[in-house]
Amino acid sequence: MTGLHDTTGDGSGPTVVSIDAMGGDRGPAAVVAGISLAADKSPNLRFLLHGPAEELERLVAKRKDLAGRCEIRDAAGIVTMEDKPAQVMRNGKNTSMWSAIDSVRAGEATVCVSCGNTGALMALSMVRLRKLPGVNRPAIAVLWPSRSASGFNVMLDVGADIRADAHDLLQYALMGTSYARNGMGIAHPRVGLLNVGTEEHKGRAELKEAHDLIGAQAEEASFTFVGFVEGGDLPGDVADVIVTDGFTGNVALKTGEGTASLIGDLLKEAFAYSLLSRLASILALSSLKRLRKRIDPRRVNGGVFLGLNGTVVKSHGAADATGVAAAVRLAEQLALSGFSDKLAARVASTAPQAHDAPPDDAENGKTP
Amino acid sequence: MTGLHDTTGDGSGPTVVSIDAMGGDRGPAAVVAGISLAADKSPNLRFLLHGPAEELERLVAKRKDLAGRCEIRDAAGIVTMEDKPAQVMRNGKNTSMWSAIDSVRAGEATVCVSCGNTGALMALSMVRLRKLPGVNRPAIAVLWPSRSASGFNVMLDVGADIRADAHDLLQYALMGTSYARNGMGIAHPRVGLLNVGTEEHKGRAELKEAHDLIGAQAEEASFTFVGFVEGGDLPGDVADVIVTDGFTGNVALKTGEGTASLIGDLLKEAFAYSLLSRLASILALSSLKRLRKRIDPRRVNGGVFLGLNGTVVKSHGAADATGVAAAVRLAEQLALSGFSDKLAARVASTAPQAHDAPPDDAENGKTP
Repeated sequence: MTGLHDTTGDGSGPTVVSIDAMGGDRGPAAVVAGISLAADKSPNLRFLLHGPAEELERLVAKRKDLAGRCEIRDAAGIVTMEDKPAQVMRNGKNTSMWSAIDSVRAGEATVCVSCGNTGALMALSMVRLRKLPGVNRPAIAVLWPSRSASGFNVMLDVGADIRADAHDLLQYALMGTSYARNGMGIAHPRVGLLNVGTEEHKGRAELKEAHDLIGAQAEEASFTFVGFVEGGDLPGDVADVIVTDGFTGNVALKTGEGTASLIGDLLKEAFAYSLLSRLASILALSSLKRLRKRIDPRRVNGGVFLGLNGTVVKSHGAADATGVAAAVRLAEQLALSGFSDKLAARVASTAPQAHDAPPDDAENGKTP
Repeated sequence: MTGLHDTTGDGSGPTVVSIDAMGGDRGPAAVVAGISLAADKSPNLRFLLHGPAEELERLVAKRKDLAGRCEIRDAAGIVTMEDKPAQVMRNGKNTSMWSAIDSVRAGEATVCVSCGNTGALMALSMVRLRKLPGVNRPAIAVLWPSRSASGFNVMLDVGADIRADAHDLLQYALMGTSYARNGMGIAHPRVGLLNVGTEEHKGRAELKEAHDLIGAQAEEASFTFVGFVEGGDLPGDVADVIVTDGFTGNVALKTGEGTASLIGDLLKEAFAYSLLSRLASILALSSLKRLRKRIDPRRVNGGVFLGLNGTVVKSHGAADATGVAAAVRLAEQLALSGFSDKLAARVASTAPQAHDAPPDDAENGKTP
C-alpha cells in the first residue's frame, strides 16, 4: 500500500477508511464530496477509494483537500440496488463493494463505508469478513435520535437476521455496549431489552431467558442493565443501547422513520396553509432548521454491521455529501478507538465456549 | 331497563353505549364531561353509566344535555391501574368495569367504553364476553394517523396476545376489515401484512403461510390484499388495515407514539429558542393547532377489542373530555353499524370448521 499507512489505534499516524464509491443513489460524486467534507475536519484521515479508476480520479482531482489522501482501487463492476445478494456473492468479485470489503479483510483498513444495496453488503461482508468467534448472528445497529444526553440511542438488530435466541440477544447487548462506548463515547452504557411491558413476567420465553443472561453479564462487561424497555423508550432516556431481534427492530426502525416523515410533511402543509402561517414559517426558519438537524436521518446515517472480523458502515442509499460525511466520521471514530479489536475481545470473553477464560479488560474504561 | 331502549341497528331509536365511568386517570368527572360532549352531537345517543351512583348522579345532574339520557348503574368498586388482571377476575364483581362489560353481555348495549386498566379490561372482557366462534385469539386494533384518504389506518393486534400463527393473522385481517368498513366507512379496505420486506420470500414462516391464507380470502371478504408491507407503511397510504402479531404491533405502536412525542417536544424547544422563534410560534399557532389536531392521540383514542361477543373500546387512561368523547363517538359508530353482529358473521363464515358453509354477505356493501 503506497502513501497510506494504517497505524490506527496507536495514535501516531493516519486513520484509513475503506470507501465503496459506487452503488449510492447519487453516484460517486456525492461520495467524493462527502469524504472531502469529512477530510476537512480530520487532517489524519486517509481513504482507500474503490470504483472505476478513471471516473474516481477525475472526481478526486477536483478536490484539493483530498490531494495525497486518497488511494484509488480500480473496480469496474457496480452492485445496483436491484441486484440479489446471492447473485452478488457469486458474480460480484469485480465490484467496488467487494473490493472495499476486501481491504478490511486484508487488514488495510479496519472499517469500510458503503451507500450500496444493504442485502448485498451484508451478504458480502458475511462471506468475506466471516463472523467473529463466539458470534452466532451478526447484527445491524443504528443510532436513534433520543432524549438521552448523547442525543442518540443505539438499537440492534434492525434486520441482519429475523431471528434471535436468548444467547444472540446477549451478544447484541455486548456488541451494542461496545459500539456505544467506542463510537459514542459512553463509558458505562445503559442496556435495555425491548419487550411489550416492563414487568419481568411479560413477553416471550426467549426474552425472559435473555433478561437473565444479560443481567448476569452487566458487571463484568461494564454496563448497566435496565431490564425490559418498551417501544416508547427507543427515543427515550431510559437506555443507551436497546436490544431486540432483527424482525422487531426493523419494523420499529421503519415505523419511527415513517412517523417522523409523516409529521414533517404535515408540518410543511400546516405552514403552507395561510399567508400568516407562511410568514410564521419564515420567522421560524432557523428554529425549524435546528429541529431538522437534531432528527436529520442524514446525521444518524450509519447503520453498522457488528459481529464480523472488521466493521462495515452502511450509509443510506440516498445519502448526499452531508450523509456520506457523517458515515465517514463514524467510521473514523470507530477506527480510531480500535473498535473492531475491542468488540472481538469482548465477545470472545463471554462466548459460551470461552466462558471460563479470564475476562479481557482491553475495552473497558478506554473511551475516546 | 327504564328510559332507554336499544334499537341499534334498525335505525329507529336510540343507540345505547355502556360506559365504565371509573378507572381513568382523571376520574369520573372527565368521563361525564366526555359523554356530554358526544351527546351534544348525537341526539339519539343514550348511556348506561357504571360507577358509584351518588357521585355519578351529582356529576350527571350538572349536565343538562344528559338529562334523561343516562341510566346510572351503581357499582362501588374501582379497578385501579395497579390491579393485576387475575385479581380483578377473581374479586372484581362489584367494580364499574365488570358492570359495564356485563351490560354488553346482557345485550343491553353492543359496545362498552372504558378508560381503565387495559390488562384487566382485556381479561374481564375475555371471561365475561367470551371469544367469538372461530376466533382463537382476540385482538386489539388501533387507529394510526396516516396518509390514507381517511386520515387513519387500522393496525392490529397491538398487544392482546404476544403470539399469532398464520390462521390468527387471517382472523385479524377479517376483523380489521370489518372494523375499517363499519367504524371508518371504508367499503373495500386494503389489507397489508406487516413484514421486514415486501418481497414474498422474506420474513418468518408463519408470515408466508398467512400471506397465502389472507390472499385466498380477499375476494370473498371484499377486501384488497396488498401483500407484505413494512413499518414505514403504518402511517402510509398503501394499506387501510395492517395486520401483525401483538408483540410486533405493540412495539410499533409505542415506537410511533414515542417518536411523535419526541418530535413534538423538540418542536416546542425550537420555538422557545429565541425571541424571533417565539414570535413565529404565535403567528403559527393556528397552523400548529391544525397539525396537533391531525395527529392528536386523544382523537385516535379508541383501542378496540375485537373477536369477542360484543365490542369493547379502550380509551386512553389519561383521556380528558375530548378523548372520552372521541372514544364514545367511535363506540356509537360501531353500535349504529351493527358492527358486533357483522364481525361475528364474517369470522364465522371463514372459520376453518365452517369453511364449506355459504359466505354470509350481511356485512358487505352496507357501509355507514
